[in-house]
Amino acid sequence: MQHVFVTGASGFLVDRLLADGITVTGWDNLSTGQIRFLDGALQHPKFKLVRGDNLDLPALTAAMKGVDFVFHLAANADIKDGWQHPRKDLEQNTIATFNVLEAMRANGVKRIGFSSTGSVYGEALVTPERPTPETDTFPIQTSLYGASKSAGEGLLAAYAEGNQIDEAYIFRFVSILGERYTHGHVFDFYKQLVEHPDRLRVLGDGSQRKSYLYVQDCVEALLHVTRNHTARDAKHHTQIYNLGTPEYVQVKDSIAAICEALNLSPKLEFTGGDRGWIGDNPFIYLDTKRIQSTGWKPKLTIRQGIIKTLRWLEANRWVYEARR
Amino acid sequence: MQHVFVTGASGFLVDRLLADGITVTGWDNLSTGQIRFLDGALQHPKFKLVRGDNLDLPALTAAMKGVDFVFHLAANADIKDGWQHPRKDLEQNTIATFNVLEAMRANGVKRIGFSSTGSVYGEALVTPERPTPETDTFPIQTSLYGASKSAGEGLLAAYAEGNQIDEAYIFRFVSILGERYTHGHVFDFYKQLVEHPDRLRVLGDGSQRKSYLYVQDCVEALLHVTRNHTARDAKHHTQIYNLGTPEYVQVKDSIAAICEALNLSPKLEFTGGDRGWIGDNPFIYLDTKRIQSTGWKPKLTIRQGIIKTLRWLEANRWVYEARR
Repeated sequence: MQHVFVTGASGFLVDRLLADGITVTGWDNLSTGQIRFLDGALQHPKFKLVRGDNLDLPALTAAMKGVDFVFHLAANADIKDGWQHPRKDLEQNTIATFNVLEAMRANGVKRIGFSSTGSVYGEALVTPERPTPETDTFPIQTSLYGASKSAGEGLLAAYAEGNQIDEAYIFRFVSILGERYTHGHVFDFYKQLVEHPDRLRVLGDGSQRKSYLYVQDCVEALLHVTRNHTARDAKHHTQIYNLGTPEYVQVKDSIAAICEALNLSPKLEFTGGDRGWIGDNPFIYLDTKRIQSTGWKPKLTIRQGIIKTLRWLEANRWVYEARR
Repeated sequence: MQHVFVTGASGFLVDRLLADGITVTGWDNLSTGQIRFLDGALQHPKFKLVRGDNLDLPALTAAMKGVDFVFHLAANADIKDGWQHPRKDLEQNTIATFNVLEAMRANGVKRIGFSSTGSVYGEALVTPERPTPETDTFPIQTSLYGASKSAGEGLLAAYAEGNQIDEAYIFRFVSILGERYTHGHVFDFYKQLVEHPDRLRVLGDGSQRKSYLYVQDCVEALLHVTRNHTARDAKHHTQIYNLGTPEYVQVKDSIAAICEALNLSPKLEFTGGDRGWIGDNPFIYLDTKRIQSTGWKPKLTIRQGIIKTLRWLEANRWVYEARR
């Protein structure tokens, strides 16, 4: 990697690539990213930010000139409110990914890493394995988000297996925790508890089991796998990795950890049902043996990640204010 | 079913629905369909043809008013030439399917049958089962066509599992044979042999194993399954069926049958390799136990279907002339 193009640029990956001496072009519509997260990168001589949208293929193609690797992280990640704007997942996740691949083709860029999601496992047609391996049974999708990311994966694979690109790395993320992370359950719970410390509204019945990964561990994993070129000599140019911790927590337990850390005892108001929203998967726990076999492993447990996130939110109230 | 909307209308399904007394609105851009195939239907008082494209959502929504079932069959089915026009599969298969679902939502239409393809099985990450069951392992896509159809399936499932529609029937077709069928290997081979009876160019080495289904058997299957409402009381509103015959043929054997029927002995020119084109799956053979368990079974063998197709092409030279 000499010059990396990062879509959805407002994150630690940019800082980390720059620290390693790599030239980085960030591409972001800044729809959810906070420009302040790029304060450090913007001072760096090897960083350039181009503001643009993935639906604008000519601008995307022009911005990508001269790069040798693409991390395509930009996405609409708002899974629960998909039905409020059904076209958004199609456009920002599926069509956007197609455009990224077409821009790569136009520029002769041959390598890509893609942030997919454990949500692509949707629901299994037969009794599912847990933890879920990459070779789980062909699932049915249960959300527009999962469907749009699965479609993005399909496009990467078609380009790679069709010899249009050389290396396609698909990472199926669990939910991410950590600094700068302005959505997800820790952010939502913290925001509520700042507004009303005596009560907390919880989607579902609190029994949902979910896995999480700390953002810096995630960044390490992306770099570790793609730099080792696991797709170069493999049977398939498409390499798929579940990306998470080898554990999960119940929503209830996560709440207990948050309340203990904040020294609060709010009254819990559960909306009920075993799912947080329509299409929610009540048990997300990915088999991460494959990625761990490459030598990467997470440094933080889920609980440590939750506490890190909380401490950062406490120290950076402006993030919460900006999202009010 | 009282009033059925059929996208990709130029086929036997329209005739069959009309014969059963059902009102039919056909929606077709007539890009590959031959208007002559609708000669019969156009005389029928219960048939209306609306010419339009699936990318035109307002027109599609208006045309769908008052229907209670949608058969979404329109597609770009040109699998081998995907790389000549990469956006076509995205637009005509993925975005088109999204628009069909959105038009259904706007009109309160709750039931859909969708022609998907065995190509969605792409390549398995582990040693694949053959015949391929619906619960095969989560595959990687190998063609833009497979990726776009898989994306369409994901959208249907997301709408069904998200309670936007009640019944989603996904049929993973093998290749279709029979009258009115103006693409596929029988059409291609016949066209070549009319032009030069002494030689035949064959993609790959002829060892590819493929399964086929006769078009009238296919139409029966679509009606049989959807009328029995198998998705109504099932755990999932999305029901997936492989659709094919419980057999396969090698390309070589298919050629032998065609040559015998035409009384020709052309010199065979193989392009070589075990695949007909980049992304071709050299062995397509679907497990059809699930659909056969509903009581449907095919009437014609693959060989009978091949001969039927040939005889029809011989009697309808205009089809071949129109495609020259």
